[in-house]
Amino acid sequence: MIERIAILGTGLLGTSVGLALRASGFTGSIVGWNRGAEGAHTALAAGAIDSIATDPLQAAKDGQVTVLAVPIFATLDLMEKLAPVLGPAHLITDVGSTKGQITASAGRLFNTPERAAFLPGHPMAGKERGGAALGDATLFRGAVWLFTDDSTWQRSPQSSELVADWRGLVAAMGSRTLDLDPARHDKLVAWVSHLPQFLATALSALLEDEVGAAPELKDVGGRALREMTRLGASPYSMWRDIAYTNTEAVQATLFALEQRIAHLRENLRTPELRNEFEQANRFRRE
Amino acid sequence: MIERIAILGTGLLGTSVGLALRASGFTGSIVGWNRGAEGAHTALAAGAIDSIATDPLQAAKDGQVTVLAVPIFATLDLMEKLAPVLGPAHLITDVGSTKGQITASAGRLFNTPERAAFLPGHPMAGKERGGAALGDATLFRGAVWLFTDDSTWQRSPQSSELVADWRGLVAAMGSRTLDLDPARHDKLVAWVSHLPQFLATALSALLEDEVGAAPELKDVGGRALREMTRLGASPYSMWRDIAYTNTEAVQATLFALEQRIAHLRENLRTPELRNEFEQANRFRRE
Repeated sequence: MIERIAILGTGLLGTSVGLALRASGFTGSIVGWNRGAEGAHTALAAGAIDSIATDPLQAAKDGQVTVLAVPIFATLDLMEKLAPVLGPAHLITDVGSTKGQITASAGRLFNTPERAAFLPGHPMAGKERGGAALGDATLFRGAVWLFTDDSTWQRSPQSSELVADWRGLVAAMGSRTLDLDPARHDKLVAWVSHLPQFLATALSALLEDEVGAAPELKDVGGRALREMTRLGASPYSMWRDIAYTNTEAVQATLFALEQRIAHLRENLRTPELRNEFEQANRFRRE
Repeated sequence: MIERIAILGTGLLGTSVGLALRASGFTGSIVGWNRGAEGAHTALAAGAIDSIATDPLQAAKDGQVTVLAVPIFATLDLMEKLAPVLGPAHLITDVGSTKGQITASAGRLFNTPERAAFLPGHPMAGKERGGAALGDATLFRGAVWLFTDDSTWQRSPQSSELVADWRGLVAAMGSRTLDLDPARHDKLVAWVSHLPQFLATALSALLEDEVGAAPELKDVGGRALREMTRLGASPYSMWRDIAYTNTEAVQATLFALEQRIAHLRENLRTPELRNEFEQANRFRRE
């Protein structure tokens, strides 16, 4: 049974995990650590964590389960530091948006009978802005929480039990879990998550150039424009590591979209336009 | 004072106009005509119209104000047919999404002291699906209702009064009005309305090809993907005439977006990515 959890990184996701755990009835301890003091204090005040740790490695050692909720390169860095100090009674999991490099490190540094377990995770939930203040107990309800676990990993009985228990807590937070191969994960999320984001960024940047000087004209677009550009508010800091660690897959999706838009542009007055609308309608059929 | 309105075309927009007029307190008569009988009966049952006309030209003759709420080519066709049967005590207005051709026809066929007035209009409101059943009394609340009126047109005093009264009814339906030159209108809506639509169609069609065979994977994308592809449900029938009558402006926006996406794709690992995110953030600043 999980009774002591450490959350390293109390931004939007880390804070939401703490709040969602509490909302689901988790009664154990939740220690939080954050690089900036303000985020930790906001998470504490919101009840997402019970106490603030000053040393992330010590917090992980004292806990049974450690949730890494920091950007991807910071996650990889913490994995290197945590590997030598944790043991077979520990589980680490993460919420990183790309899983290739993290899962490779998990196989290299963890997941033997003598070492801590590492369960690579990725909740498909978020907001266009980050920070502890936006933490939300309902963020993971109805969402899909992806794992890129590896069935060939040999874990200690103790840490295997923690893995099963953590999966139970994820379900209790309201998410449906889905297991994917890490390469397939990174390709899939490139299509359904990274492509929409980078597209919204390109569209918003272009529109800022074209109509940004006349703010009243933004209103003209109404709901459709607001929705298509909402993700344009996403900060670079949330997406830099994703762009860097899933470059090839994201490039492939962007290139495919460029070609698809060009195809539509060349067919605005041909019967092919009907085919494109009908294919799009299929994606949105109920 | 406007007391008799005819709505030609009781799809989503026509039905919503009737419902919004009633909700705003309009107590005159509203006659409806629709090409398909079902749409007219749905509008009647919803209270958007008081009676169903079988002849659109007679309905327009009997009314003071006629609202054309049919696709653009059908609007142009009705304009030709209405010009010889209406006179200086009539106003026609429309809700078409492109205004170049309609405004040109309005100048050619109407808007002299001896003829009916034609006020080209375009409420920036809609849904991704059409039909009378989706009619909504609140559709125009908070929306911008564009006009491409021409100050050089010489109208009869009677029809000029109807123009002013119709603008008042639009405000009563909750919309803010904005007057634009028709060429500027068509360029502006290409950016803020048509580009988002054709982009959502291209994105949805591409995603249907890539992940459509595995519907459970669509859920993985969550809210962001749902928003970015909502307009993918828009039917070809609603957009064919727009593509045909605003081709050049839409092509320019699509081509610019292709180049912007390519630029982002080539800079996923360079500092330029930060600039693009920051420019996008500016578009969404409060």
